[in-house]
Amino acid sequence: MTNPQSPIPNLHFPITAASMRIVALSGGVGGAKLVDGLASILLPENLTAVVNTGDDFDHLGLRICPDLDSVLYALAGLENPETGWGRADETWNFLEALGSLGGPSWFKLGDRDLALHMERTRRLRRGEPLSVVTDYLRRALGVKPSAIPMTDDEVSTVVVSSEGDLPFQEYFVARRCEPLVRGFRFVGIERARPAPGVTEALSAADLVVLCPSNPWVSMDPILAVPGVRELVQAKPVVGVSPLVGGQALKGPAAKMAVELGFAPTAYAIAEHYEELLTALLIDAQDASLAPQIRSLGMQVDVTGIIMRTREERASLAARVLDFAKGILSPKGAR
Amino acid sequence: MTNPQSPIPNLHFPITAASMRIVALSGGVGGAKLVDGLASILLPENLTAVVNTGDDFDHLGLRICPDLDSVLYALAGLENPETGWGRADETWNFLEALGSLGGPSWFKLGDRDLALHMERTRRLRRGEPLSVVTDYLRRALGVKPSAIPMTDDEVSTVVVSSEGDLPFQEYFVARRCEPLVRGFRFVGIERARPAPGVTEALSAADLVVLCPSNPWVSMDPILAVPGVRELVQAKPVVGVSPLVGGQALKGPAAKMAVELGFAPTAYAIAEHYEELLTALLIDAQDASLAPQIRSLGMQVDVTGIIMRTREERASLAARVLDFAKGILSPKGAR
Repeated sequence: MTNPQSPIPNLHFPITAASMRIVALSGGVGGAKLVDGLASILLPENLTAVVNTGDDFDHLGLRICPDLDSVLYALAGLENPETGWGRADETWNFLEALGSLGGPSWFKLGDRDLALHMERTRRLRRGEPLSVVTDYLRRALGVKPSAIPMTDDEVSTVVVSSEGDLPFQEYFVARRCEPLVRGFRFVGIERARPAPGVTEALSAADLVVLCPSNPWVSMDPILAVPGVRELVQAKPVVGVSPLVGGQALKGPAAKMAVELGFAPTAYAIAEHYEELLTALLIDAQDASLAPQIRSLGMQVDVTGIIMRTREERASLAARVLDFAKGILSPKGAR
Repeated sequence: MTNPQSPIPNLHFPITAASMRIVALSGGVGGAKLVDGLASILLPENLTAVVNTGDDFDHLGLRICPDLDSVLYALAGLENPETGWGRADETWNFLEALGSLGGPSWFKLGDRDLALHMERTRRLRRGEPLSVVTDYLRRALGVKPSAIPMTDDEVSTVVVSSEGDLPFQEYFVARRCEPLVRGFRFVGIERARPAPGVTEALSAADLVVLCPSNPWVSMDPILAVPGVRELVQAKPVVGVSPLVGGQALKGPAAKMAVELGFAPTAYAIAEHYEELLTALLIDAQDASLAPQIRSLGMQVDVTGIIMRTREERASLAARVLDFAKGILSPKGAR
């Protein structure tokens, strides 16, 4: 395994950007990739990932935090690039044996991945808050930048669907996103407090990055934690569109957009974050949408935003920072 | 994998013995081997294993029942003959990953074995009694004879040692049986009721077999469940010594005997079960002890009692039944 914190060679980005203090709001796969890209060009102390926990759920007595795992595995260089979840170096003997005993095998738990859920659960059960456990796991995995759950309190995303209210993982994994989406509820969000470190990181940030994660089920829960939206709004905010060419690179964002009544394009993303975004990065495929998005009062950068390789993660991260530099200059600041 | 229930060929035993109704009291490895031997020559409906649960414990949020597992795995043909616990076809990726996260890896949980503990725990957690869960797992593993925990109530073996009271698994696994044994307590035993089926099987039995398991920590808990000893005492009882040539074939029985003040021989076993045993099978190596054991008022059969192969399990089981036939004849019955 290569050292996940080793710098990407031959990359051109403004050296001054490396000293910006960045908070990246992240959900699952796409978000984790950009966080990893940012980690490869920033000093670890200048990067904090604040991660959605609305998808977290209990399964087989284990507390499973899919988005935190995606971010931790990506930063540790362990993630499975094919599936978008779990680890690359994985075996499935536990799950196979569980299935042969008639146990619930719909949620895919690899043998090594299982250890992370088990250790997290063991520590939660003895009373450690999720943020403390996450910080422990981060260090154990050799990850240097901070990764913080949006809250230590339990928040559960419920999909309001054509088949009634569904817990997110049931909608997402067991039902493969088939029920039509009408909306979402984040149960427990009113009482949720930002996890220790979230408010501090946002207050100290030079820039907030909205990673290319699902706006409705990954970003909105983070922004809905009381106090977080206001802290984000006070900063320059650059987003990267999770939709390219009318499709989500991964996951159900495009399908959700349509079911919620929007055309599944980067414009819908811009509109969704209208109050919040200083600028949005959209893909070259979507260049024609740029004028329309600018008319919403935000800046637009058109570039390649698909991250197929580690190098592309780093170059997109560099592009975000480079573009942000203009925003951060006295003239561009709001 | 061979069918664990297929008959052993070319074995000579009285065909009438196959129709005896047998209850085998069993602890871990040695006991499980003899239960497997009995299963290979008896009709499944004529064999019930009543299994110690005093070693059961919670680990990583899982309910682990080592002796039930030994019996189930042996009967399913899945047991690991080298370790004496766990499965033969096993991988260790979970445990390795757990260890690298700083989690507790002292108790060896294989990837496939873990599925059994997980499914058991899941069912216990939703309110099924251990006997119901065990019966479910037995069927799922394709095991035909009954295997019943001694009780559905929680009983915990505590080792009274030179270092104070130790939970059994801590003494046995974490401390490798190093502390000196002074005695044992079975916490919760006074309130424990025999699991459904135990009383019925014992009442209907033609013969009770005390398998070659540790008398203090495997057999005594079963016999201490209120009502069980009386039911056993009312039947012809044949035991197989767990000690051969002054040593335990597996586990700490010999060490415990010495620390409890006994010579670690088959005679100590006979003395321990004096009130209970109709007959004891001892190894040819211990033939010289036979007269002394007979003087305790029980019959003795001297034979090879070490079970190295599946054939030896079956032939020892046949020997037990053959010998018991004499006891069961009107003349030999008590």
